[in-house]
Amino acid sequence: MENHGISAPVNEVLPCLTQLISLDGVTGWPPANAELMHAVSIGMPSSPTGTNDALFVHLDEAVAGDGNPSYSKPPPEAAKFHPQPMPTEEDHHSRQHHASVQDKRFDSFKTWSGRLERQLSNLRGKPRSPSPDEDDGTAAHGPEMNLPVDRYFDALEGPELDTLRASEEIMLPEDKRWPFLLRFPISSFGICLGVSSQAIMWKTLASSPSTEFLHVSTTVNLVLWSSAIALVSLVFLIYFLKVVFYLEAVRREYYHPIRVNFFFAPWIALLFLALGVPPSVTERLPPALWFVLMAPIFCLELKIYGQWMSGGQRRLSKVANPSNHLSIVGNFVGALLGASMGLKEGPLFFFAVGLAHYTVLFVTLYQRLPTNETLPKELHPVFFLFVAAPSVASMAWAKIQGSFEYGARMAYFVALFLYFSLAVRVNFFRGFRFSLAWWAYTFPMTGAAIATIRYANEVTNVMTQALSVVLSSVATMTVTALLVTTVLHAFVLRDLFPNDIAIAISERRPIKTNMKWLFHLGHGSPDTKDIQNYLKFNCSGTKVEVDAVNTNDDSEMAVELERKR
Amino acid sequence: MENHGISAPVNEVLPCLTQLISLDGVTGWPPANAELMHAVSIGMPSSPTGTNDALFVHLDEAVAGDGNPSYSKPPPEAAKFHPQPMPTEEDHHSRQHHASVQDKRFDSFKTWSGRLERQLSNLRGKPRSPSPDEDDGTAAHGPEMNLPVDRYFDALEGPELDTLRASEEIMLPEDKRWPFLLRFPISSFGICLGVSSQAIMWKTLASSPSTEFLHVSTTVNLVLWSSAIALVSLVFLIYFLKVVFYLEAVRREYYHPIRVNFFFAPWIALLFLALGVPPSVTERLPPALWFVLMAPIFCLELKIYGQWMSGGQRRLSKVANPSNHLSIVGNFVGALLGASMGLKEGPLFFFAVGLAHYTVLFVTLYQRLPTNETLPKELHPVFFLFVAAPSVASMAWAKIQGSFEYGARMAYFVALFLYFSLAVRVNFFRGFRFSLAWWAYTFPMTGAAIATIRYANEVTNVMTQALSVVLSSVATMTVTALLVTTVLHAFVLRDLFPNDIAIAISERRPIKTNMKWLFHLGHGSPDTKDIQNYLKFNCSGTKVEVDAVNTNDDSEMAVELERKR
Amino acid sequence: MENHGISAPVNEVLPCLTQLISLDGVTGWPPANAELMHAVSIGMPSSPTGTNDALFVHLDEAVAGDGNPSYSKPPPEAAKFHPQPMPTEEDHHSRQHHASVQDKRFDSFKTWSGRLERQLSNLRGKPRSPSPDEDDGTAAHGPEMNLPVDRYFDALEGPELDTLRASEEIMLPEDKRWPFLLRFPISSFGICLGVSSQAIMWKTLASSPSTEFLHVSTTVNLVLWSSAIALVSLVFLIYFLKVVFYLEAVRREYYHPIRVNFFFAPWIALLFLALGVPPSVTERLPPALWFVLMAPIFCLELKIYGQWMSGGQRRLSKVANPSNHLSIVGNFVGALLGASMGLKEGPLFFFAVGLAHYTVLFVTLYQRLPTNETLPKELHPVFFLFVAAPSVASMAWAKIQGSFEYGARMAYFVALFLYFSLAVRVNFFRGFRFSLAWWAYTFPMTGAAIATIRYANEVTNVMTQALSVVLSSVATMTVTALLVTTVLHAFVLRDLFPNDIAIAISERRPIKTNMKWLFHLGHGSPDTKDIQNYLKFNCSGTKVEVDAVNTNDDSEMAVELERKR
Repeated sequence: MENHGISAPVNEVLPCLTQLISLDGVTGWPPANAELMHAVSIGMPSSPTGTNDALFVHLDEAVAGDGNPSYSKPPPEAAKFHPQPMPTEEDHHSRQHHASVQDKRFDSFKTWSGRLERQLSNLRGKPRSPSPDEDDGTAAHGPEMNLPVDRYFDALEGPELDTLRASEEIMLPEDKRWPFLLRFPISSFGICLGVSSQAIMWKTLASSPSTEFLHVSTTVNLVLWSSAIALVSLVFLIYFLKVVFYLEAVRREYYHPIRVNFFFAPWIALLFLALGVPPSVTERLPPALWFVLMAPIFCLELKIYGQWMSGGQRRLSKVANPSNHLSIVGNFVGALLGASMGLKEGPLFFFAVGLAHYTVLFVTLYQRLPTNETLPKELHPVFFLFVAAPSVASMAWAKIQGSFEYGARMAYFVALFLYFSLAVRVNFFRGFRFSLAWWAYTFPMTGAAIATIRYANEVTNVMTQALSVVLSSVATMTVTALLVTTVLHAFVLRDLFPNDIAIAISERRPIKTNMKWLFHLGHGSPDTKDIQNYLKFNCSGTKVEVDAVNTNDDSEMAVELERKR
Repeated sequence: MENHGISAPVNEVLPCLTQLISLDGVTGWPPANAELMHAVSIGMPSSPTGTNDALFVHLDEAVAGDGNPSYSKPPPEAAKFHPQPMPTEEDHHSRQHHASVQDKRFDSFKTWSGRLERQLSNLRGKPRSPSPDEDDGTAAHGPEMNLPVDRYFDALEGPELDTLRASEEIMLPEDKRWPFLLRFPISSFGICLGVSSQAIMWKTLASSPSTEFLHVSTTVNLVLWSSAIALVSLVFLIYFLKVVFYLEAVRREYYHPIRVNFFFAPWIALLFLALGVPPSVTERLPPALWFVLMAPIFCLELKIYGQWMSGGQRRLSKVANPSNHLSIVGNFVGALLGASMGLKEGPLFFFAVGLAHYTVLFVTLYQRLPTNETLPKELHPVFFLFVAAPSVASMAWAKIQGSFEYGARMAYFVALFLYFSLAVRVNFFRGFRFSLAWWAYTFPMTGAAIATIRYANEVTNVMTQALSVVLSSVATMTVTALLVTTVLHAFVLRDLFPNDIAIAISERRPIKTNMKWLFHLGHGSPDTKDIQNYLKFNCSGTKVEVDAVNTNDDSEMAVELERKR
Repeated sequence: MENHGISAPVNEVLPCLTQLISLDGVTGWPPANAELMHAVSIGMPSSPTGTNDALFVHLDEAVAGDGNPSYSKPPPEAAKFHPQPMPTEEDHHSRQHHASVQDKRFDSFKTWSGRLERQLSNLRGKPRSPSPDEDDGTAAHGPEMNLPVDRYFDALEGPELDTLRASEEIMLPEDKRWPFLLRFPISSFGICLGVSSQAIMWKTLASSPSTEFLHVSTTVNLVLWSSAIALVSLVFLIYFLKVVFYLEAVRREYYHPIRVNFFFAPWIALLFLALGVPPSVTERLPPALWFVLMAPIFCLELKIYGQWMSGGQRRLSKVANPSNHLSIVGNFVGALLGASMGLKEGPLFFFAVGLAHYTVLFVTLYQRLPTNETLPKELHPVFFLFVAAPSVASMAWAKIQGSFEYGARMAYFVALFLYFSLAVRVNFFRGFRFSLAWWAYTFPMTGAAIATIRYANEVTNVMTQALSVVLSSVATMTVTALLVTTVLHAFVLRDLFPNDIAIAISERRPIKTNMKWLFHLGHGSPDTKDIQNYLKFNCSGTKVEVDAVNTNDDSEMAVELERKR
C-alpha cells in the first residue's frame, strides 16, 4: 500500500491517519517520527504531483477506456490507495472532464444501456472485460446493489428526505437538468389522489340528502372524474416508461424510506377512480375489478409490513413516518370500495389488517420515538395524512356494518379531532418548499369532507351541514391552490420536476468532503458523525479504534488514537 | 494539563478550565505554568478581593440600583467574565444581603409589581432604563421566557418532579416561607377530585339495587357533595388569586411536565360535581352545562395532545407519565356525564378521542420506554391513575350504549385487573413523602368502586356485591386516611403547603454548584451529566470538545482534550 | 494529570491497567516509568510463577478445604489482587483438577444437598465455617441470589438466549453430560402444546360441517388426546422432580427472560387437553375445572405483566420477545374454554385482560424497539407465535358472542395475514439449530387451522374449505416432521436434551476471558462491551474513568486514560 519502508501497523493506519490529521500545522500535532511526517505530506496540497490526481486519472481511464463502467462516480475505495488531495483547481479541471462525459453518467440508471446491457451480454457468455472496474475495487458495488436505508438517512435531509446534505455528493451531474423520466418521481401519483378524491367528494355532495340544499350538479363529478382518468393514465404511462428505461431509478425510489410508501398511491388512485365513477358512466362495477385492484396492494403490504416486523434496517421504529399512512389507508379504501360493491369477507379482511397495523402505526407516530429518524422535527403538511386513515375507516366500517353506527362514528370523530388539532397549528406549516408530494396530503382533507357529509346524512342538523360545507370548501380551495401552484411551477417557473436528488445519492460517503471536516478538526468543531461514517466506510481494518454510537438524534464518537510517542 | 508555553487556543479555554479545575490543592493537580496558575488563582478563595464578589456586587447593584430587575438570581453568564469563588463566608454575607432584599425576589413572579408593571410602563412608552440588566447579560432571559422542559428534568427529581437536585439552586429564598399563593400548587385540585368522586360513590351506593341491602342514606351524598362544592369553590378562588397575582408561577406550573396534567383536574372536578349532584338538589341538569364544562377540556386537549405529537420537547416518548392519565380521563368523565344527560354525539366524540389517545398512552406507559424521563423508577401511588381511565370508560360506554354490555364489561375487567396488579404490589408504596397530589390518586379507587357497583347491578351475586362493598370501603378508608394526614399536615405540622420548589428553578444551571462536582472530580467520581451540562451552558465556543450523549437513564460524556505534548 | 512519581491513585489503578494494557510489546505502547512497567510485567506470560495460578490455587482450596462452597466458579474479585495470567497449560491442569471435583459443582443447584442443607443446618444454629468463602469474597454471591436479567443478556445469545457467548464461562462442567433433570428445560412443555392442539384440530375436523366431506374419524382425536394426556403427565412428573431436586435450576429458568414465558405452557397445555377432550370421554366438563386451571395463569399474569409495567430490569421495552405471546395466549385459550363450558363473566374477564395486553405486546413487537434486547435479529420459528393469539382470540370471541361475527372474523383475518406474511418469508427459517422449543411454535399453526375450520363453518365455500384442508395439512405435517426430528435427536443422535447452558451462567463475567480481549486490544478490534463490563465489575473505585453507555444494540465505552507523560 505504501511505497516506503514503514513498519507494519503504521502502514495499515497511514491512509486514514493521513486524512484524519493531514493539517499538522493547524492542529499543532507534531508527528513523532519522520516516516509518519512523510506519509502526512503525501496528502498535503504542497505535494501536487502524481498521487494527487491519481483518483481522477483512474476514473477517467475507467470511463474512457472501458466504455462501459458500472458507474462513474468517484469510487471511495480509491482513497485507500491514493491519499486524497485538497480540492485544487486541477480537481475542477478533472470535474469538467467529467462533465464532458456526463452522458455516460446516466448510463448506470438506464435499463438498456449500461448495467442491463452488460448483464445481458454476460448472460450470452461474453463478459465484457470488467478488469478496470475490479482494479479500483468498485466492481462489487455497482448501483445494482441495494442501497442500505442508512445511506438515505445519512445523505439526505428534510421532511421528505429529498435534500442533499452539505457534505454529500451525488452520482449524477448537479449542474444540468436530467432526463425528464429521471426527474419524474413516484410522488407524482399524489396528483391523481388529489383529483380523484375530489371527484368522489363532488359525487357525494351531489347525491347526499344532507347537502341537497346546495344543488350541486353531477356534472362536476363527471368532469373531475374524466380529468382524473386522463391524469392517472398519463402519470401511469410516464412512470411505466421510467420503469422501462430507468429501472435503477425506480429501484432507488423503492428503497427510499419515504418514497416507498408512495408506491401505494397508484393503486389507491385507481380505487378512488372506482369509488368516484359517475352514476352516468356505470352504477355497478364488476366485483372482479375489486380483486384485481387489491392484489398489488396486498402484495405490497406483505412486503412493507413484513419489513417493519422483521427487524432489518427498515424496522418500524426506524422508518416510522406520517407517509406510512399511505401504506395503511389502501386497506380502508379497498374495504370501502369492496363493501360498496356488496362484497363481505374481502373488505372485512382488509379492514382488519388495516386496523391492526393502523393501531401500531398510530401509537408509534404519536409516541415520537427518538429512533424514528425520518419523522420531521416540526409539523409539516405530511401530517395531514393522519386524518386520512380514520376518515376512510369510518366510511368503510359504515358500509361494512350497513349503517353509520358507533364504530364508524368513533373513527370519524377521531379523524375530526386530528383535523382540528392540525388546523389550530396551521401556522406551523409555513416556510416549507413546495413539492409535488403535497398533492398526496390533500386527499385526507377531501376524505374528511366526504366522511363529514356521510355523517351529516345520519345526524342532519345545521352544525353538521355547515361543517360539511366548510370542510368541502377547504378541501376544494386547497386543491385549487395547489393546482395553481403546480401550474405556476410547471409552466412559469418551469421547475415542477427538479433534479430528483433522492435517487442519485452515492453509495458511500464521498471522500472529497472529508477534507471539509479535516479543516474543522483543525479548528475545533469536527462533525463527529462525518468522521465516524468516514472511518466506518474507509478505514475498517486499520488500527484507529472507533467506538461509534448512534443515539437519540445525534451521534457520537470517541476516537482512541494510540499515539506512539 | 499543560507544561509548556501556552498559546492562543489555551487562552480561549482558560475561563472554563478555571472553573473545571480550580482546586489544584484538592485535586492534586499542579498547574505547570504561570499563566494558568494565575487564571486558576482568580477563582481561588485565597484571592478574596475584587473579582470574588463581583457577581454579587453586580447583582446587588442591579437589585438596589434599578429597583426593578427582571429577576435577581445570580446570572450564570457572569461566570465567563468572573471566575466563580468558593462558597466563603463572604458569600453567606452577600446571601444575607440578598435575604435583606428578598421581598424583591418574589417580584419576578408577581403579576403586578415586577415584570408586568414594567411591561405596562413600556407600553405607555416609558422604558425604565434596562441598561443594568443588559450589562450582566440577563436581559434576554427574564423569567417570562418559557422554561424548556429539559430544565425541569435537569433541576428536579422525584416521581412528581418536585424535589430539587443537590446541584441546583432556586430563584426564591429557600430559608423562609414564601407567600401562601406561591406555595399553593395546581395539584390542590386533587382534593376536589377525591371528595367529589366520593360524593358520586355514595350516591351510587344509595341508589343501586345491588347495594340496597346496605341501606345507605342519601344524606351522605348530600353532605359530601356540599363539602365538595365548598372545597371546589375555595380552591378555585385561591388558585384564581394565584393566577391574578402570580401569573408567572402559574405559567411555570403549566410548563412543568407533570403539573400540566393537573390543569385538567379543576374541570374534571366540576364534571364530578355534576355527576354527583344529589337527587334532592336536581334531577336534571341543563345540557348547556355540559358544553360549558367540556370546552376547557377540549382546548387543553388540543394543546396537550398536539404537544405529544408535534415532536417538540414535550413529545410523548419524553413526557409519558402516569399523571398523563389525568389528561385522558376527562374525556371519559365528560362522555359519562353527557350520556347521563341524554346527549348522544358529543359524548361519543369525547369517548372516541379518549379511546384513541388512551390506547397510545396505555401502550407507551406499559412499554416503559427508556426515554420516558419522568416515569418513576418504582411503583408509586401515581400508578393508581392507571385504574381511572378504564373504570370511567366502562361506565361511559355503558351509558352511551344504554346497557352494561360486552365493551363496558371489558373495560371494567381491565380496570379490575390493573387494580389487582397494583394491590398485590402495595408494599412498594412505603417510604414516599406525602404530597397533596396523592388526593388525585384516590379518585381512581373510588371510580373502580363505582364501576363495580354498576357492574354488580348487572351481574348481581354475592361475589360482585362483596367486591362492591370491599372496594367502596377501601376507597372511603383511603380518603379518610388522606383527610386525616392532610389535616395533620395542615394544622399540626403546618407544612401542608411547603415552598413549591418546582416553580422556582432557575433557568440555567447555577455556577456555584459547579464547585461541588469539582470536588468530586478530584476524588474520582465526577457526575458526568453535571460536567456536560455545565460545559454546554457555560463553555460553548471554546476549544474543549464535548461530545455529549443523553442515553437511557444515564448520560455520558467523552471529553477529548487535545494535549499539546 | 500527574507529573510526579506515581502516588496513591496510580497505585490504585494499576491492577486494572495491568490487565488493560498488559501486552506492551504488541500494542507498541511504551510505559514511561519503571513502576508501571513492573506492574505490567506482572500480568505477562513471561512471569509464570507465583501469582499466575494464585486464583486457581485459591479456588481449589475453597472447594477442597471447605467441602461445602456456595459455588465453585472462579471468583472475579480475585482479579484485584492477582493479575490474571494467560491461559497456560497450567490452567488446563487446574481445570482438570476442577473436573475431578465436579460432583460438588452440581450441589449449588441441588435442593437437598448444598445450599438448602446448609441453610437448614444454619437454621438449627450450626453455621458451617463460611470463612473460606468470605476470604475470596464470594460469600455474598451464592447462586441463591436472583440473577439480574442483564446477566442473561450479557452471557447468552441466540434467538432463545440459550447459547453461551464466547467470552463466558459456566458454573457447571462443560465437558460432561449433566444429570438429566438439570438438562430438562421448561420448554419441554412445548411438546404438550403441539400434541394436545393437534388433538383439538382433529376433533374439530371430525365434527365440523365444513369438513364433513373429509370423513375424519373421531378415533384420531381419541388417540391424539390419549397420547397428549400421557405426554403431559410424563412431562409434568419429570418437571415436578426437577422442582423438587433442583429448585435452583428451576429458579434460574424462571428468571431467564425467554424461558419465563414457557412457565405458562403447562397450564395452556392443560387447557388444550380440556378443549380437546373426545366426546366419547365426556361431553361436559365441570365448570369448577375452569377456575382451577385459570388460577395459576392468573397468578403468573399478575407477576409477569406487573414486571413489564413496574419498570425494573424486566420492563417490557427490554424483554419484549415473540415468546411473550405465550404469556398472552393463555387468556384467550382460557376464555375459549370457559365460554365453551357456558361461563360468561370469567371468560370475558380473561378476554379483556388478554386483549389489553395483547395490544401492548403487538405494538411493541411490531415496532422493534432498539431496546428490545431479546428480539431475534432475523425471522425465526418463534415468530409463528404471532399467529397464535389472534387465532385463538377469534374463536374465543366467537364463543363469547355466540356467533362468528365481525369481531371474531377480524381477529381471524389478522391471524391469517400474519400467517401469510410469515409464510412468504419462510426461507428465513433455514439454518437454525433444532430445539425442543420449536414444538411450542407449532401450536399457532394448528390454532390457525382450527380457526379456519370454524370460519369455514360460517362461510362455507370451496376456497375456505380448501384453506381449511391446506392449513390442517401444513400443521399436521409440521408436527410430524418435528416428531421425527425429535425421535431422531432422542434415540439416534441422543442429544435431545443437551446441557442446558442457559441455567448455568455465572453471576459475574469470568476473569479468564478478559485475557482474550486483551489480545484483541493488541490487534486492534477490542470488544468494547467486554472492556466496559470488565471494568464495571472489577475496577470500580479506581481512578480509571469509564463512561459507559448502553445504546441501541451495541454498547460503547470511552476510556479516558490519563497518561503520565
